[in-house]
Parts: sequence; C-alpha cells; structure tokens
Amino acid sequence: MAVGNFPFPEIKPLAGLKFGIVNAGIRYKNRDDLLIVELNPGARVAGVFTQNAFAAAPVLLARKHLQESAGNIRYLVINAGNANACTGDEGLRNALSVCDDIAQSCGVSANQVLPFSTGVVGEQLPIDKFYQAIPAALRDLEADNWSRAGKAIMTTDTRPKGATKTFVIDGETITVSGIAKGVGMIKPNMATMLAFIATDAKISQAVLEKLVQEGSDKSFNCIVVDGDTSTNDSCMLMATGACTAKEITETSGDVYEKLREAIFSVFLDLSKNLICDGEGATKFVTVKVDGGRHVEECKKVAYAIAQSPLIKTALFASDPNWGRIAVAIGYAGVENLDPSLVNVHLGDELIVENGKRASTYTEEAGQAVMKKEDIVITVNLGRGDCSHRLWTTDFSYDYVKINADYRS
Amino acid sequence: MAVGNFPFPEIKPLAGLKFGIVNAGIRYKNRDDLLIVELNPGARVAGVFTQNAFAAAPVLLARKHLQESAGNIRYLVINAGNANACTGDEGLRNALSVCDDIAQSCGVSANQVLPFSTGVVGEQLPIDKFYQAIPAALRDLEADNWSRAGKAIMTTDTRPKGATKTFVIDGETITVSGIAKGVGMIKPNMATMLAFIATDAKISQAVLEKLVQEGSDKSFNCIVVDGDTSTNDSCMLMATGACTAKEITETSGDVYEKLREAIFSVFLDLSKNLICDGEGATKFVTVKVDGGRHVEECKKVAYAIAQSPLIKTALFASDPNWGRIAVAIGYAGVENLDPSLVNVHLGDELIVENGKRASTYTEEAGQAVMKKEDIVITVNLGRGDCSHRLWTTDFSYDYVKINADYRS
Repeated sequence: MAVGNFPFPEIKPLAGLKFGIVNAGIRYKNRDDLLIVELNPGARVAGVFTQNAFAAAPVLLARKHLQESAGNIRYLVINAGNANACTGDEGLRNALSVCDDIAQSCGVSANQVLPFSTGVVGEQLPIDKFYQAIPAALRDLEADNWSRAGKAIMTTDTRPKGATKTFVIDGETITVSGIAKGVGMIKPNMATMLAFIATDAKISQAVLEKLVQEGSDKSFNCIVVDGDTSTNDSCMLMATGACTAKEITETSGDVYEKLREAIFSVFLDLSKNLICDGEGATKFVTVKVDGGRHVEECKKVAYAIAQSPLIKTALFASDPNWGRIAVAIGYAGVENLDPSLVNVHLGDELIVENGKRASTYTEEAGQAVMKKEDIVITVNLGRGDCSHRLWTTDFSYDYVKINADYRS
Repeated sequence: MAVGNFPFPEIKPLAGLKFGIVNAGIRYKNRDDLLIVELNPGARVAGVFTQNAFAAAPVLLARKHLQESAGNIRYLVINAGNANACTGDEGLRNALSVCDDIAQSCGVSANQVLPFSTGVVGEQLPIDKFYQAIPAALRDLEADNWSRAGKAIMTTDTRPKGATKTFVIDGETITVSGIAKGVGMIKPNMATMLAFIATDAKISQAVLEKLVQEGSDKSFNCIVVDGDTSTNDSCMLMATGACTAKEITETSGDVYEKLREAIFSVFLDLSKNLICDGEGATKFVTVKVDGGRHVEECKKVAYAIAQSPLIKTALFASDPNWGRIAVAIGYAGVENLDPSLVNVHLGDELIVENGKRASTYTEEAGQAVMKKEDIVITVNLGRGDCSHRLWTTDFSYDYVKINADYRS
C-alpha cells in the first residue's frame, strides 16, 4: 500500500556520472541489487549518516573514507538485500574488501570508494557474490540511468523514488537529480533510508557539506513513520563539476540561492515520496507546530503528535479525534505550557481553541478533513515565534501485518 | 483481549473507610459509575498526578485541595465516563461544584473533598446527574466493597483490578488494599490510569508522601503501552490510621520496611494487572536494562525498546527479531555507546553477544521464548552498574482495531 502519486520522473543523464547496475544475487534472484556509481575526477561528495550507535560496517567505512579522501571520491558501491549491520569486525573487513576490489580494478585507492548496504541485519555479506558481480557492474558503467538505479537499491519499497530539478546559471542549465529508497526508517531488518543526489554544478567541499547537512535537516530528518532510526541511513550529495559555470564557493548570492533551492527541492520531493511509501501508509500527514519559544519545543510537540500510536490510528480511521492531539501536546514536555493559549487546526478547521474544543467546531467539518488523503495538523503554542514541521503517516492494520509477518 | 490471570482478589473491609457506589448515568446506563470514598477523621492522603500540561480540571482541583487540607481530607469522589479534561474554566467550576455538594451534605469544607474523573475528553460534566446521584451515593456509604468499587471506576477495562496484602505489627494485622483502572495510559479519550490504595496503618503525612512517590516510580511509572500520558492519571495512597499500632513517622526500621514492602507489592500487582489488560495485549513483556553508567541511560534504552512499534509487532508475531532490538538500543541516545560491549538475552537465550548475533543462538531457541505469553528482554550495556526495568505489551491488530474504531 502507498499513498500519493509519485511516478518516477524522466531524468536526463548528468555529465560526469556513470552507473553500473547488475543482479549480484545477494538476496534477490530476478532483479538488480548492486549499483556502482562512477564519478569523474574532481567530483566532490559530502554526506550525512545515521546517528545509531549500532551504525553498520559500510556506514563506519564510508564515513572514514569520506574523511580521508574528501574531494577525491571516485566510486560509490551500493547493495540491496544485506545491510552488513551488527556484523562486527568481519563485517568491516567484508565492506573494505568490496571497496578494495573496485579500487584495484579501477586503479584508485580503496578509500576513494564509499560502500552502502541495505537489507537484512546481522548476516555477513556474501562476499564471493560481490567478487563475481563487480566486474560485470564495472563493464556496465554508462550514462546514468536513474530509473534502473532507483530500482536496484529498493528493498521492500513498492516503487522506485526519484526527483529532478534544473536551474540556469549564465545561460547554462544545471541539473540536480536524485534517488532514494526506504519506507520511512521503519524497517531495521530490511532497514534503512538511502539517498543519492547528484548535480553537475561545481561546488566547493565546504559549501557541499553545508548543503547536505542543511538539506537533510529540512527534509529527511523531518519525516517519521514510527520513530525507529536504522543502522544504515545515509544521504550523499555529489557534485561532478562537469558544467562550465564557475565553482560555487560562497553560501550567499543569487547563484547559491538557486542551487540551494533546487537541491532542497529534490531532497524534499524524495522525503515526501518516502513517507508516501511508508509501510501500510494510507495518509500523508503534515504536522506543523508554530508559536513556540524555540524550535526545540516545537520539535518535541511535532514528534509527540507524529509518533503517537493513538493519533496515528485515529488518522487511519479518519477520526477527527482532537482530544488525542491535545493530550499529545500536553505530554510533549514543553516547560510551563499554558493550555489556554493553545490552538489547533485540522486542515482549515479550528478544532482546539484556547485549550478547549473550539466553539465553532463541528464533528462533520473535522470528519471532512480527516477523510482526505493529505492532512495538515497545525498547532499554535501561543508563546513565541518559532516553528517546526514534520511529515508522517498513519498506522494501519497493514502496518502491523507487514511488520508482524515479515519474517514468517 | 487481555493476558495473564488476574482474578479480583478477596479483599476484607478496612477500618476507617467507607464506599458509596451508584449508577449516576454519566455515560453508562446499566452499571455503577460514581464512587464516593469516606475517610474517618484523622486519615491521611498523599498522591501523585499526571505531568500532562493539559491536566484535567479534577487533577488541578485535587492537587489544590490536597495542598490546602493535607492530613484532613475526608472524601474522594470518582466518576467514570467523562474525564472533565480540556474543559477550561467551566470544567473547573463543575469539579468544584461536585466537591461543594458533597461538602455541604456532610458538613465539611469543599477542600476536604478530592475529585477524580475518567472518560471522554472535551465534554463538560453532566453536573445535574451528579447532584441527583450524590445523595444516593452518600446513603449507600458502608464498609468498603472493593470489588464493586473496582468495577465502578472502569471505562474500557475488560475487568476490575484489585490487590491486597497484609503484614503484622506487634501482633496486629495491618492491611493494604487497592483498586486501579486503565488500559495502560493509552486512551486519552476514555483516558487515564487511576489507582486508589488504602491501609489501616497510622502513617505520618511525610512518610505517606514518600511512599506514594517512590511506590509510583517503581510501579505505575514503569509501565508503558504506547507512551501516551493521559490528562487525568492519579494515584492516591490513603492511611486511615484505624489500627491500634502506633504511628509510623520514620522511613527506616523493621516496621517501615514491612509497610513499604506491602504497599509496593500492591502497587506492583496493580501495575502488572494494568499492563495485562492493555489494549489488544497478547504478551506481558519485561524489559530490563543492566550495565548502564546511570539509571537515566538505562531508562532511555528500556523506553526505546518498549515503545518501538517494530519490536512490539515482532512480539505480537512471536518473532525473535534480535536485529530490531539491537537497532533500538542503538538509537536510544546513550552517549558513546560501544556496541561491542552490548549483550541481549531473550528469556534465558543469549541473542546478541558483543553487539553481534550470538554464536550459540538458534532461531528455534529464540522462537521458543517468543511463543510464551510472558517474555523477558534483558539488555546489558556493559559499561556500569545501573539498571532500569519496564513492563509493556505487544502491538496487535486488535490495538489498531480498538483505537481506530473507538469513536465510529
């Protein structure tokens, strides 16, 4: 099940980038499951990774290689079907072997290769299958086919997820394109949110790092299905620099703003696409909290609402249950919250007014909003100017079914 | 649905305590829904209340009355069917009217009466029904019938919950008895955990306050169904002092220890009973986290496990999904956690050893543990001597059904 209409967009190849895609048989027999990305020399890569203390072997290694070879990364290797997480030293050795194998074939150092894995937790990589598949993947390297790549990194996703944007600098069209997989960081078994975004713009390492950090904070870090954070979550932003426009080295000015807008828009499209493919999702829900003293307290309230199983089941049932929303605001942990200043809108309907059921509110009006597939809950805490926004889904029978039946 | 075998125990009347119970028709037509507790003069009451910022009118008022009349409370009035929460000033006035009405009939002050409500959020109390029912309830005052009282305070509970313990001081038998309602703080609509525990011991106000605080922390505050905290949660400990043994004024010594043990045991029995009646519960799950540097980090890990929908659905499916447990430990937010020191047991089976799948673990052994109704998950963080323990349940289809269908 999935909500929303997110057809895979038509994405034009991007100069400076090649994809090699094969079926390595890591877990899946009849579909691609190994993607190698080749970047032209001089391309830059920046990334953000999971905060999970049980970060998987590829995450540990990718972080290390990115530090050692910032500005000089040449390959990314991504497999679906096995997460190489909770695999200890052997897992680390295996991830390094995969990098080594590509490095030797391509005449680069192992630390110029970044590994990524997604799939089952706690099993060692079938390393021989990698050795067999890597030469074929390298032979397959060709202009980037984003749609095939999007499919190769899927696990339990019901559809590949892609996004693309263009903008113009000095008459030259610059492209930002990306793919992502994940059903909302909600499957530590078929775990993981992975996102790979690339542009042909020329961007300094410092600017790229700022963009990937800020972009993730405003997109991937604002989606929540069930609050579980995987061991393998990674988001990589690549700049091939293959355009002729000059390098962007400042985080201000017109050109930077255009770039930022395009990149953030791709991040956001991918994030929303992930939410809409969340397990058992039947609703796309925006939770917006305004009027906080600081962003932190707005976040607390937004997460309390987005993660409340009671609210999520009410959303599934299209039940305008304002009491459950009020209760979640109340236990979110905002210091000295004055309920009599709190207002809540469901869509355009005022449902809670000064901490009580709004005098103008009717159950019918609330019901009409809740029956939609796209629902916005807006809370105003009435004590400041700060805001935070999250996107989430409901909890359905299918959520329980998918996660309860998964290994049986 | 409910797990465990918790028949309502036989509870002997307690000197110094009377119950008056009637059907006031607040929401339910054919069952009792109003309980008045009368305490003899000199009885003492101490309590703990919800931390929810949207604390209901009766909570605000009971807190105030308890402060004003500590050591001189004479009546408690508890209704089921309407929570009087998110009801603003009118709600406060209504709660006070109920106290006033009892006070005038009984010749005490309104602030010697403590009000409690549980039920639907956001509707005003049907105050006339209270005025009509209170005289009948007062006429009904008689030796405490705990089983009838336990039933009168139920909302969606599938069974009344009671517990009792006795101990001996200087040849005299002292009794501690209690009732509770709630399906795990998981229904902000039919909200609320309420617990009323009484003893005929003579206890100083200071000691009583320490006991109710510490007792709740080790019992009611250690159970979690879905993490939602209601607007009305209250736990009251009453000491009638009707025994002949002398007053307990110290928090040490043999007599205090016996009292403490009996009271905590009643608290704990009621807590476990609440968990077992959790909505849709099919498992009783103990989450124990050892080896932490401080209790706070053990709590974080225990809550991450107890509240993870992924683990809860795996428990429902009897799936020994150790990967999901490892992942939850990883994202719990323990600073500088070293996964290679982490061990996890499922029952007696070692499932995670040094952060990896235990070498001796077999899926069959894990499955055998998971099929039981009573499951213990033990985590050792391997970095200190602190521990924390929580009790929780699984997430079943019925959980979604109950909460999604509740108002339809």
